[in-house]
Amino acid sequence: MNTFNPKKNPHRRYNPLLDEWILVSPQRSERPWQGQTEDSGHEQQPSYDPGCYLCPGNTRISGEKNPDYKGVYVFDNDFGSLMREEVEYPAGTTDFFVMKPERGINRVICFSDDHSLTLPEMEVGDIRNVVDLWQQQYRELGAMDFINHVQIFENKGRIMGCSNPHPHGQIWAQSSIPTLVQRTQHNLKKYFDSHGRSLLEDYLEKELETDERVILKNEHFVALVPFWASWPYETMVISRRKLSDINQFSEPEKTALAEILKGLTVKYDNVFNTSFPYSAGIHQAPTDGSDHPEWHFHMHFYPPLLRSAEVKKFMVGYEMLAEPQRDLSPEQSAEVLKALPLVHYKNKDK
Amino acid sequence: MNTFNPKKNPHRRYNPLLDEWILVSPQRSERPWQGQTEDSGHEQQPSYDPGCYLCPGNTRISGEKNPDYKGVYVFDNDFGSLMREEVEYPAGTTDFFVMKPERGINRVICFSDDHSLTLPEMEVGDIRNVVDLWQQQYRELGAMDFINHVQIFENKGRIMGCSNPHPHGQIWAQSSIPTLVQRTQHNLKKYFDSHGRSLLEDYLEKELETDERVILKNEHFVALVPFWASWPYETMVISRRKLSDINQFSEPEKTALAEILKGLTVKYDNVFNTSFPYSAGIHQAPTDGSDHPEWHFHMHFYPPLLRSAEVKKFMVGYEMLAEPQRDLSPEQSAEVLKALPLVHYKNKDK
Ligand SMILES: O=P(O)(O)O[C@H]1O[C@H](CO)[C@@H](O)[C@H](O)[C@H]1O
Ligand SMILES: O=P(O)(O)O[C@H]1O[C@H](CO)[C@@H](O)[C@H](O)[C@H]1O
Repeated sequence: MNTFNPKKNPHRRYNPLLDEWILVSPQRSERPWQGQTEDSGHEQQPSYDPGCYLCPGNTRISGEKNPDYKGVYVFDNDFGSLMREEVEYPAGTTDFFVMKPERGINRVICFSDDHSLTLPEMEVGDIRNVVDLWQQQYRELGAMDFINHVQIFENKGRIMGCSNPHPHGQIWAQSSIPTLVQRTQHNLKKYFDSHGRSLLEDYLEKELETDERVILKNEHFVALVPFWASWPYETMVISRRKLSDINQFSEPEKTALAEILKGLTVKYDNVFNTSFPYSAGIHQAPTDGSDHPEWHFHMHFYPPLLRSAEVKKFMVGYEMLAEPQRDLSPEQSAEVLKALPLVHYKNKDK
Repeated sequence: MNTFNPKKNPHRRYNPLLDEWILVSPQRSERPWQGQTEDSGHEQQPSYDPGCYLCPGNTRISGEKNPDYKGVYVFDNDFGSLMREEVEYPAGTTDFFVMKPERGINRVICFSDDHSLTLPEMEVGDIRNVVDLWQQQYRELGAMDFINHVQIFENKGRIMGCSNPHPHGQIWAQSSIPTLVQRTQHNLKKYFDSHGRSLLEDYLEKELETDERVILKNEHFVALVPFWASWPYETMVISRRKLSDINQFSEPEKTALAEILKGLTVKYDNVFNTSFPYSAGIHQAPTDGSDHPEWHFHMHFYPPLLRSAEVKKFMVGYEMLAEPQRDLSPEQSAEVLKALPLVHYKNKDK
């Protein structure tokens, strides 16, 4: 009988944040592809687009006009998924028809006034302004009495449902703690209660020791491919200090996060010499007024591309019904990302 | 204060199968769309395609030649995610690097020798042959001692990662019970242990009583939009009898399932007069040798289209980090599906 080799043999890995398993099929990368390809659709954009509803000075569909902003800009989403309004809810749901009204606020954050940029093409100082705004928004929204959770995220690229190339992210702030955050919190708390330490603190220590999946690090943050990653080039950014939320960041920590974001997204763009699509977002303590010593600030990056700028991983069928499955191993992806330069491919010759 | 109206106000609904919540934003359907559109790509296919590796008589990439089959045909996937081979696994994983070798078998099932067909365009009698094969495969694979779970599913359409239009599905049979099946089983068992009845039996009763989300029914099966559906036109097919698995189906039940599948997929194609993409699959008792009185056979259909044949729902950003979100309410979708004819749009004039 052959001995198990995680680079060759199908296996399952355990994700302690979500308490679930994923299937890894490293032998499957050679599979030929005859299926759908994506139009990577990343033509060079102009710095200002008169038809863009996020550019400074332009009028949005709602009729509101954006100010002539410089740098970052935040406003309430004109087509939010949540509403502030409180509604009266007469009790009386049956066993199976359980629903509850949900209040919240959706905001859009422009990362820059320059329509042509994306995070990897912005200066660290300008990314730092985005981090500052995230902190300010987490504070402002979190302080509202009907807001118990603030989800900060970015959808980048058409393939990720992003309808406008102008560099921007979103915030969905709401009364309830969403399903995946609740599940993460449950697992962080279980670990914290039994070990008196943060799960991610201990995990980070092991990853730094092994040094197999670490992509980038500075004094305050580490970017790595988690051992249990399910998307081909999935990564996490974890704070070295156990900070429960962005509110607790020091000035150097805010700059250090901006630096890591710049480095990681530059490497991403360099994977296929294309603007690398992803959904990314922050997981941190809810703003429900309780103490959350179990929480440890981190960001998830979920990029869909697999073989090229045109071929993505489809999370369908088996993945929707059974469990996430990946072809290339997390260590293979980490190797690719580690080896890539920190200079953006567009600036290679400068 | 206004009174809660689930047709107008954002709210969350509870999914008892997965023990999680989803966010419903019925007010959001009017949002304009400037994002990615799909090439629905469903040109009429020929009945035989010499370049198709699933057509009768053709040679596959592996060098194997398909027989001149009529009707259904099953074979081992040439590029499986799992392997039969047993490997030795020396214990000794640390706390965070938990992995286990996984054995299994991947198969491909051709639904028909006719390259140009899809389930909704097949005769009920021919779909019945597919159901028979599912039963036979569940039995055969389930009887193997290293197979404890048999996942039967179909990815339909390029947008769902299906690389070949030839009508076909897949089976991934493996040693472990996959994450989502395990979670479903846990919740079914909790209900069964405390009520002495199947969760889906009781749920079905309530849905038939309310008759708001039921799309189709016959003597043995019901197709409905679940109260907690997260995809725009998501449905479930549930057996009226509490059957734990397809093994227990009677002859009339097998025909009745074929009929429901025909009706449901015809309605799907009629939503946008296009071949309607989806991932679908069976959830049923694992083949781990234990008794599973808690299990109740059902199928999930997860179709991605939202507004048109070209605009899908993107489960990204908030959905990947926080929880599933839908725009149109499950009742609105049920209304659309209910109203659609049982005659396929291509046969309207016949
Ligand atoms: O096996 P196929 O059809 O080549 O592949 C498709 O279905 C699989 C199972 O749902 C997925 O893992 C793949 O990402 C998808 O492209
Ligand atoms: O709000 P947007 O950018 O229009 O919409 C995008 O992001 C949302 C949040 O991740 C998703 O619910 C939508 O499906 C997606 O298209």
